[in-house]
Amino acid sequence: MSSTMSPRELRQKIRAGEYRGNTSGCAPGFVQCNIVILAAEYARDFLLFCQRNPKPCPLIAVGEPGATALPSLGEMDIRTDVPGYCVFRDGMLDEEVADITALWRDDMVTFALGCSFSFEEALLADGLEVRNLSQGVNVPMYRTTIDCAPAGPFSGKMVVSMRPFQAAEAIRAIQICTRFPAVHGAPIHLGDPAQIGIVDLSRPDYGAAVRVEPGEIPLFWACGVTPQLALAAARLPLAITHSPGCMLVTDLRNSQLAAL
Amino acid sequence: MSSTMSPRELRQKIRAGEYRGNTSGCAPGFVQCNIVILAAEYARDFLLFCQRNPKPCPLIAVGEPGATALPSLGEMDIRTDVPGYCVFRDGMLDEEVADITALWRDDMVTFALGCSFSFEEALLADGLEVRNLSQGVNVPMYRTTIDCAPAGPFSGKMVVSMRPFQAAEAIRAIQICTRFPAVHGAPIHLGDPAQIGIVDLSRPDYGAAVRVEPGEIPLFWACGVTPQLALAAARLPLAITHSPGCMLVTDLRNSQLAAL
Repeated sequence: MSSTMSPRELRQKIRAGEYRGNTSGCAPGFVQCNIVILAAEYARDFLLFCQRNPKPCPLIAVGEPGATALPSLGEMDIRTDVPGYCVFRDGMLDEEVADITALWRDDMVTFALGCSFSFEEALLADGLEVRNLSQGVNVPMYRTTIDCAPAGPFSGKMVVSMRPFQAAEAIRAIQICTRFPAVHGAPIHLGDPAQIGIVDLSRPDYGAAVRVEPGEIPLFWACGVTPQLALAAARLPLAITHSPGCMLVTDLRNSQLAAL
Repeated sequence: MSSTMSPRELRQKIRAGEYRGNTSGCAPGFVQCNIVILAAEYARDFLLFCQRNPKPCPLIAVGEPGATALPSLGEMDIRTDVPGYCVFRDGMLDEEVADITALWRDDMVTFALGCSFSFEEALLADGLEVRNLSQGVNVPMYRTTIDCAPAGPFSGKMVVSMRPFQAAEAIRAIQICTRFPAVHGAPIHLGDPAQIGIVDLSRPDYGAAVRVEPGEIPLFWACGVTPQLALAAARLPLAITHSPGCMLVTDLRNSQLAAL
């Protein structure tokens, strides 16, 4: 996948079935989003859940019921422009598909949420090492004992991603990520994993473990897997998300998300 | 000391010999400064030292040679408006005085440097507990193994102050202090004290030890004692500083120092 392709060109290739993979590293500089699609009758509660849990669920755009476009993120058809979708029925993953045109209904509402790719890019641009990227693995993610604020049927524990840094870099990483509240913002915890219910850093619940060097401090960010767990817990008859790592690539630039 | 007295009224009382104490808690909301006064022949190198070590030596104002005023900080006479002065001769503390009019010379240059009182106020305003304040002691300070960038005769190790916080508060404290580069800014280290050469947190080199609760992380800020050590190391024939805790209270508001 050419890294110089525009987000719109990339979406068109995906729509045409010419690209199906992970979008990590695609269209550098542009915002990629987590996607949640559910029926309008649940949309109000899910919107509330995101509002009440902005760090794991930072909303970047919400579509109108039945709308297949998110105009603020670029020209698109949300039914075809994500490289892979997970289809949940009654809270269980039922199938993974490349196109949800056949599943689409007039009452469906699309939510686009910020993703850590944006802040990882900002960390790299500042010269920091992002361990999961340098090791070429999916970031390690952990279920914590931190309760999300519930809304209607949506509830659950917060999931966090972890990246280790030496102390001075940890402080710098906090500063950099603070500028980006729309993509999880600053870490929610640092240091002792046990304080947030993580028993063993080497055994993440999702993703892959990364090396933690002597003297490094683990930093924990609220993670976009959190709303997926809340979605599963709600056992909706039908809910659709992007497949892990297969994000919606938007026309928004990462720098446009900077709060300052 | 009335906490509602204006900085100018306070300086006038000090000038009149009616107030001699520590200025902590005086004129809340206003910037207090560390003061260094030395001969013009050393001023260029000291200015360079501050420029090269902005975290321990954040310059807020520099006077003209012989000038007893720092107009950007308010109407004042620097010879009389600080509650106490330390007089160093050949790098050794020789006397503490309440007035330096008799020592003043036409070639003297005054440096005003930012002080942690400003960021402590911002931390308190955000609801954080600042341990040295809640315990009513002078903040614990430690000599580190971190070398300052030298300039002419000025060199030495960085001194840091330490305040402990739980992880989430530590992240918040980093965010708050980042807004205030003119008063030491964000911490320069967190976590393991040994990484910066501190052997025992309970035995500070200056100030008093504070309680560190289970689960708390020590945060370390570059400290205004650093330039005092560099000054002593330079063994100037004559140098004058404020007495510890007896700062220049200025007309600048702490909020005016916020970088954003």
